[in-house]
Amino acid sequence: MTLVVQKFGGTSVGSPERIRAVARRVCDAKGHGHDVVVVVSAMGHTTDELVTLAAQVTPDARRSHPREMDMLLTSGERIAMALLAMAIRDCGSEAISLTGSQAAIITDNTHMGARILEVRADRIREEIAHQRIVIVAGFQGISRSKEVTTLGRGGSDTTAVALAAVLDAERCDIFTDVEGIFTADPRRVPDARVLREVDYDDMVELASSGAQVMHPRAVEIGARYNVPIRVLSSFRNDEHGTLILRRTRTMAPMEGLVLTGLASAAGQAKVTVRGLPPSMEAMTKIMSALAAATVSVDTLTPADRPDGRREVQVTIHEADLPQATEICERLSKEMGGESVDSKTGLTKVTLVGSGMTGMPGVYARALEALLAAGVDVHGIGTSSVSISFLVDAGKEDQTLQSLHAAFDLGKGST
Amino acid sequence: MTLVVQKFGGTSVGSPERIRAVARRVCDAKGHGHDVVVVVSAMGHTTDELVTLAAQVTPDARRSHPREMDMLLTSGERIAMALLAMAIRDCGSEAISLTGSQAAIITDNTHMGARILEVRADRIREEIAHQRIVIVAGFQGISRSKEVTTLGRGGSDTTAVALAAVLDAERCDIFTDVEGIFTADPRRVPDARVLREVDYDDMVELASSGAQVMHPRAVEIGARYNVPIRVLSSFRNDEHGTLILRRTRTMAPMEGLVLTGLASAAGQAKVTVRGLPPSMEAMTKIMSALAAATVSVDTLTPADRPDGRREVQVTIHEADLPQATEICERLSKEMGGESVDSKTGLTKVTLVGSGMTGMPGVYARALEALLAAGVDVHGIGTSSVSISFLVDAGKEDQTLQSLHAAFDLGKGST
Repeated sequence: MTLVVQKFGGTSVGSPERIRAVARRVCDAKGHGHDVVVVVSAMGHTTDELVTLAAQVTPDARRSHPREMDMLLTSGERIAMALLAMAIRDCGSEAISLTGSQAAIITDNTHMGARILEVRADRIREEIAHQRIVIVAGFQGISRSKEVTTLGRGGSDTTAVALAAVLDAERCDIFTDVEGIFTADPRRVPDARVLREVDYDDMVELASSGAQVMHPRAVEIGARYNVPIRVLSSFRNDEHGTLILRRTRTMAPMEGLVLTGLASAAGQAKVTVRGLPPSMEAMTKIMSALAAATVSVDTLTPADRPDGRREVQVTIHEADLPQATEICERLSKEMGGESVDSKTGLTKVTLVGSGMTGMPGVYARALEALLAAGVDVHGIGTSSVSISFLVDAGKEDQTLQSLHAAFDLGKGST
Repeated sequence: MTLVVQKFGGTSVGSPERIRAVARRVCDAKGHGHDVVVVVSAMGHTTDELVTLAAQVTPDARRSHPREMDMLLTSGERIAMALLAMAIRDCGSEAISLTGSQAAIITDNTHMGARILEVRADRIREEIAHQRIVIVAGFQGISRSKEVTTLGRGGSDTTAVALAAVLDAERCDIFTDVEGIFTADPRRVPDARVLREVDYDDMVELASSGAQVMHPRAVEIGARYNVPIRVLSSFRNDEHGTLILRRTRTMAPMEGLVLTGLASAAGQAKVTVRGLPPSMEAMTKIMSALAAATVSVDTLTPADRPDGRREVQVTIHEADLPQATEICERLSKEMGGESVDSKTGLTKVTLVGSGMTGMPGVYARALEALLAAGVDVHGIGTSSVSISFLVDAGKEDQTLQSLHAAFDLGKGST
């Protein structure tokens, strides 16, 4: 008997009607002869409402009471999974709901952002052996010291893919409110198309670069354990969606550039610390202080000036800007730097593909297209699987459209 | 019957004795019940000698006579493969040598650096069906207009992996003069160890970052067609070497950083064009001119100055520096830039792994280790699978050793 893991996000279980619709879909899969494990998020905006509730009780719950925040937040999935279990039983299938603890999703101790260490799936296997549909709470786990934890961003997808890995599932289906993974955001690029297949690496890169549909950490687990992941709409019954898998590219040509798509991440900021002494100490101190404040740094660029002084440029999330500026200004003063300035309102647009190594014309082709579209570029990042351009947020559409056209993304074969 | 492709580089077939040793190894594999396809490079320094010979005949053979250069160079593998075929037949196995053209390795038209478009392997399959060991010339192909081409850097490995892909080989064995892929260069890092397995992606990144053992383009084909590649010493019989494959990481922990190793690429240079007008046109013109001159640009970093002018920094190979400087200086003058300066003698050291996305402490940990080791960093590049540091060439050992220790690369499990 093949096993499928199906994950439904908050929108998919956002109302009693939708929960009943999900139940029918799950029962259908069971009826087609699959064992089914379902992972659910909290209904609709439940988690946000609980966060607001906490804020009304205490000024800084996340920092002051992380353990109790996790206790609070994990109630959201309990509600959704209990209701879904009822609806499934009404459809005539046996169902049982399990918390992260009951499902033995073992995490580290980091409240509000735990990482999964392992899953001891004996209980789930037992329930499956009893022909039950097992509903597991997404987003939550239990530490080795028996504390309730939540997984942070992308948590429910991560639960689903981790379960699929451990249970050796045939596939992990992620039901969302979009048709699949597009070559670019279809609201911004009219000729964007749904990719039928996408490789794990390209998907990790797209997700890390701002594609909202899935979180990169869930895709990373898929890649590590080779779990095929399907992304499809929970509101349509007739479609294929996008299959994320280890892709064997048997299409000619054998070598050369194979581009997958574009992703963009708004809310980027750039901070430049100017006139630092030309030593490693200054840059290291800044990075250590930012890491200690858990400011995530995307790119870090040192540059030497003709006068011997050094400039250090970091790109970060806009939300971290006040904290990062404060840290940079303090350390710049301490170390005799000249000034700190920043630029906000930036969006990072990333072109993802493989075979970029040793392709000298790629930069030129991209820049020529952007120049023609009237886009200015404030920063560039590169790897063997991607090139990112930092542009003004108001130019995001022009950037996506011109790159989509320049690299023929609308005409691909998948 | 399983098929194995075995590739022997120039050193492995560098003398008559070595050719006989290779013949015995090939016959052994055949004796163990494998069908064997062998790919050979030219003997020892034959190719270099032919290039020197051409230089003695005509001043600039590569540019003026690319077609004839290919005709000249492809004689090198003919010699090696004919001799190897004789030696194999002396061992008692049937063998036949095939040129790139006879083996129908179809490439584009780029002399001295062609890319493989497809392989029409009918002839090879026929010969295999007649129980022959097939020896194919590495590094060479034929264009659709029947011109002889060579594949450029990494050409023989590329031939071998492409054949393994098309023939659906069980494995492609790359025989070299080292024991396998190390976590870092063992001559520089005493506790570097041989990796038993490495994932395609990590290997592409290591190879792109300077690991000399394999060229990234060959690994890319392996990844695209899922061909397991084994790298092992041709001078030892007793070892496992390193298997490059699609790795399923079933080790705990399920999430987090998984680091593979370090690679370094010497001969890097940095060119900075200062005081450009703050427009896209300047940067685009520079990149287009560099691409037209086939200068490969590794990283490209624009930075805005407080006075409104812009600086553009590119990293390139030192060998391209005179040409790049000339182009940058000419365009800088044309566009009212202030000056162009460059820094040479740089080495790029790259840390390769997965799960770096959203790991805020990685930069700090690396920089702290480098600071403690007295290493200054002149540039940094990042992707979701790597971080690169541009350091002074004289500090390469300290850089490798301190990063190897800071990230516990000597203690990994594979």
